[in-house]
Amino acid sequence: MEIVIFGSGNVASVLGRKFKAAGHNILQIVARNASAASSLAYELNTESTNYLSLVHKTADIYILAVPDSVIIGIAKELRLPDRVVAHTAASVSKDVLNPVTSRYGVFYPLQSLRKEMSTLPTIPLFFDGSDQYTSDVLQSLADSISPQLVTAATDEQRLKLHVAAVITGNFTNHLYSLAEEYCRKEGIDFAQLRPLIAETALRIQSISPKQAQTGPAIRHDRETIEKHLALLENHPSLKSIYVLMTESIQSDGGGRE
Amino acid sequence: MEIVIFGSGNVASVLGRKFKAAGHNILQIVARNASAASSLAYELNTESTNYLSLVHKTADIYILAVPDSVIIGIAKELRLPDRVVAHTAASVSKDVLNPVTSRYGVFYPLQSLRKEMSTLPTIPLFFDGSDQYTSDVLQSLADSISPQLVTAATDEQRLKLHVAAVITGNFTNHLYSLAEEYCRKEGIDFAQLRPLIAETALRIQSISPKQAQTGPAIRHDRETIEKHLALLENHPSLKSIYVLMTESIQSDGGGRE
Repeated sequence: MEIVIFGSGNVASVLGRKFKAAGHNILQIVARNASAASSLAYELNTESTNYLSLVHKTADIYILAVPDSVIIGIAKELRLPDRVVAHTAASVSKDVLNPVTSRYGVFYPLQSLRKEMSTLPTIPLFFDGSDQYTSDVLQSLADSISPQLVTAATDEQRLKLHVAAVITGNFTNHLYSLAEEYCRKEGIDFAQLRPLIAETALRIQSISPKQAQTGPAIRHDRETIEKHLALLENHPSLKSIYVLMTESIQSDGGGRE
Repeated sequence: MEIVIFGSGNVASVLGRKFKAAGHNILQIVARNASAASSLAYELNTESTNYLSLVHKTADIYILAVPDSVIIGIAKELRLPDRVVAHTAASVSKDVLNPVTSRYGVFYPLQSLRKEMSTLPTIPLFFDGSDQYTSDVLQSLADSISPQLVTAATDEQRLKLHVAAVITGNFTNHLYSLAEEYCRKEGIDFAQLRPLIAETALRIQSISPKQAQTGPAIRHDRETIEKHLALLENHPSLKSIYVLMTESIQSDGGGRE
């Protein structure tokens, strides 16, 4: 398929590489940041522009991989009647694209994407279309880069997926970050925790996290918990999180070890 | 080295396999659970007993891979003068083993171990000894199964490492568990989050988690956060965690995206 990509950031870059690797033809990169746009265009062997008036009119699909607020702005100006146009945002309704075309939709990658990634990650994709034709085209594009990982999802389902993604991705990373800061302040080496972090994420690829829960909280090991809280006296923010997470684990019941 | 292992649970099983793979001779498994003990002994090609009076007296090292409360009980009864005896607990002082021998210490694996593991994980090890000879022996054993990942650590340092391990291992897994429960209640598929979970843990193997932070909290994207909180109205426990983690991310400053 012939694809025009809006954006030159993390999502645009990684999806662009995926499209190219799947054999699609990237017609154009459209982005405000001229330097990033031309750099991505060079990588994807295509051209770039930062003028909406210069957007190619004949592509099969237009992917708006731009920040939420920018989607709205583009939708006000861009007119591509009957072309398939989709944005990649979790929390923006597909209907904001209604002024642009009769064939609009969403192409949402549930993954943390960084343009600096050296290998292309596995990306579950969720699509939605204003009509059957649009849904079919978006599903077909999704299947071409993420076979077996493509699901239809409404605006509401996508928002729920985003909540779950924030919890398992952003919040988890913040726990890593808090631990790193704690280690630095206490003079211990955060690098020694990396194998545990890898193992914890690896384990739930095959078993339920509920079954994998271990540690002093689930064991109701009050003695160890008290020792930990004493150590956290000088880390009040971390202590609040320790207390809340411990209570949450204990009220959750079940678990093992 | 000739090693006697106390315990037949997760830590005893995985350390036992690591010792065997490194060429050590497991002299004996000592455990109360006769069935688990004989099963582990069979796997490690050795014998088992559940009587402290039948413990071999001539091993080079005795590893007490048993729950914290059991360590204390064993220390009251076991006498192995001048043998090297170490427990594997994060939060128990090495000095509880003082009655057992003049050469006591700790051999702490900072990893989440499960006997069901099909492959042996990378295990950072922390050792401590009552004297130089004991430290040397324990360090040598640690080096044999975890080259480049062996560090001396006092009781206090080990307890701090454990706090960091609880945050990055147990609490992280609990976030996975909460997300799984949320997905089940909302009719979305938790399995679709697994690639994101893997990527989030993989990323911080090479960059700082602080640099890897993304999402609506670090972007101060109030509109998305409000949408998420509205969706969490029927999940009060998860909502509390969402609010606290969001505040913590925002007060932390910095970050990217």
